[in-house]
Amino acid sequence: MDLVTIGDVHSAAKRIEGVAVRTPVLPCRWADGLWLKPESLQPIGAFKIRGAVNAVRALSDEQAAAGVVTHSSGNHGQALAYAANARGIPALVVVPDVAPKVKVDAIRELGAEVILVPGGERLSVTEKLAAEHGMTLIPPFDHPDVIAGQGTIGLEILADLPDVRTVLVPIGGGGLSAGSCVAIKETNSSVQVIGVEPELAADAAESLRVGHLVEWTDEQRYRTSADGVRTNICERTFAHLSKYLDGVVTVSEAQITSTVGVLARKANLVVEPSGALATAAFLHHRDQFRAGPTVAVITGGNIDPAALVRALS
Amino acid sequence: MDLVTIGDVHSAAKRIEGVAVRTPVLPCRWADGLWLKPESLQPIGAFKIRGAVNAVRALSDEQAAAGVVTHSSGNHGQALAYAANARGIPALVVVPDVAPKVKVDAIRELGAEVILVPGGERLSVTEKLAAEHGMTLIPPFDHPDVIAGQGTIGLEILADLPDVRTVLVPIGGGGLSAGSCVAIKETNSSVQVIGVEPELAADAAESLRVGHLVEWTDEQRYRTSADGVRTNICERTFAHLSKYLDGVVTVSEAQITSTVGVLARKANLVVEPSGALATAAFLHHRDQFRAGPTVAVITGGNIDPAALVRALS
Repeated sequence: MDLVTIGDVHSAAKRIEGVAVRTPVLPCRWADGLWLKPESLQPIGAFKIRGAVNAVRALSDEQAAAGVVTHSSGNHGQALAYAANARGIPALVVVPDVAPKVKVDAIRELGAEVILVPGGERLSVTEKLAAEHGMTLIPPFDHPDVIAGQGTIGLEILADLPDVRTVLVPIGGGGLSAGSCVAIKETNSSVQVIGVEPELAADAAESLRVGHLVEWTDEQRYRTSADGVRTNICERTFAHLSKYLDGVVTVSEAQITSTVGVLARKANLVVEPSGALATAAFLHHRDQFRAGPTVAVITGGNIDPAALVRALS
Repeated sequence: MDLVTIGDVHSAAKRIEGVAVRTPVLPCRWADGLWLKPESLQPIGAFKIRGAVNAVRALSDEQAAAGVVTHSSGNHGQALAYAANARGIPALVVVPDVAPKVKVDAIRELGAEVILVPGGERLSVTEKLAAEHGMTLIPPFDHPDVIAGQGTIGLEILADLPDVRTVLVPIGGGGLSAGSCVAIKETNSSVQVIGVEPELAADAAESLRVGHLVEWTDEQRYRTSADGVRTNICERTFAHLSKYLDGVVTVSEAQITSTVGVLARKANLVVEPSGALATAAFLHHRDQFRAGPTVAVITGGNIDPAALVRALS
């Protein structure tokens, strides 16, 4: 399989300029050696906008005119709607009919059409719509342009904190971690890149340990509160992680929840559970990676206010 | 009185580079035409670090060796402690003995010595300590270097959003608003700069209306929940605001509290009541300033978690 190259990531950085926010790298006086990359401040509240904008801007005018389609009730659905709207092209987002109304409304407000289907039919309906309307299917992570777009985070970290030694990055489907690995290791191979997963959805950790893709069941993965990383990685992202990643740290549910509270109280950031993973790894598992300046990527902030209130108590 | 010049603000921008964070200007998809400048992400959670770092770095080596002193139980106390620590010089912070322990601890953790005194003796004790130890007194806003440091926010807004039409900036003692006015109006006089105050602490609005400094009593000003702007402006900041400011908008306590909730839910930012003033003005008083791209400065995020929970309910 062809992997994403550092050139692809540099091209993505040019394409997303002016649409994705250049988030800062924030020093933490309350945690010596820790910096935060708060992607929760992106226009849709998550890093996903980088991959979606890169994929949409990479389309030819002819492809773009036919529009884009995806299956995601989460941040990628909003990201693709935002990216399509920014280019002025149609977007369809196929969403399971059990998705919360608030998420469906958010996608519609961004100008996309939402198609509600039974959960099991998501992928087949998406593929059918793409074929029927000649629309380009842009999946949440299993796509080179999406991976390259997410990788721009790695370039920005190296530019803003040149003496960084370790980067901690959550793993869901693996798009962010795969892209960040390429960006960082191909630019400075001495920087350590560590993936972070919940103990309850640690399919990437197991896959990398045994050397081939191991899928966890929905029942297993849906135990974690970190809803942004309940996805299995895929062959494409596994191939990137196998080549580049220096290791995976897993964190407990209690560590995730308490870190959501810490980030609100000490860093003034509203973070969703998945967004707290990397910081939780720094606060609770520093023995598992090299000492030195460390950046934790905060992937998103779209948390239910009631869950934030619980984390603050 | 000599006013701070645009040259002073440019010098400040060079001095604070690498210590203060270059905060981004964030577009808000939930409020058309609004961008946020989140100074709540600075290392001490507030913009005050800019003025303090500028003032400390402007000292000669001899002055610096003797250290700095101030009177503030709030964000400026922490900012000066941080700035002194960054330069490796001593700092004394004189704090009223009724200040919450959490604020005193925060200043001590930053390496400053805290002197607790009865509230009425704050200023006299500070001046006595400065004289006795040859320390430089760096007050929270009545100082050219502090004003010039806060003004760097204005330069960054103009650089990051060149088509900005209006900048909304809270007024407490007036250091931030004075510095921002100089930076913005002396660079592009067509950009409107509007101050924002709580209705319950609107001394600047009244002073500018009548054309001379009008002090509000402690009893009046302490009615507002926006504890960061309970201070009267001073002759120095009044002189800058008289020359440059385009107007003042006042907001109600209900508007402040609801905006703290909006910023947490929609912008993923934890903001203190004073920090929500400018955004509240945009959301509730748009008729009082010119249409077009508007930046609201979020001054800080140091809110009591219980108050944040109330704003989220």
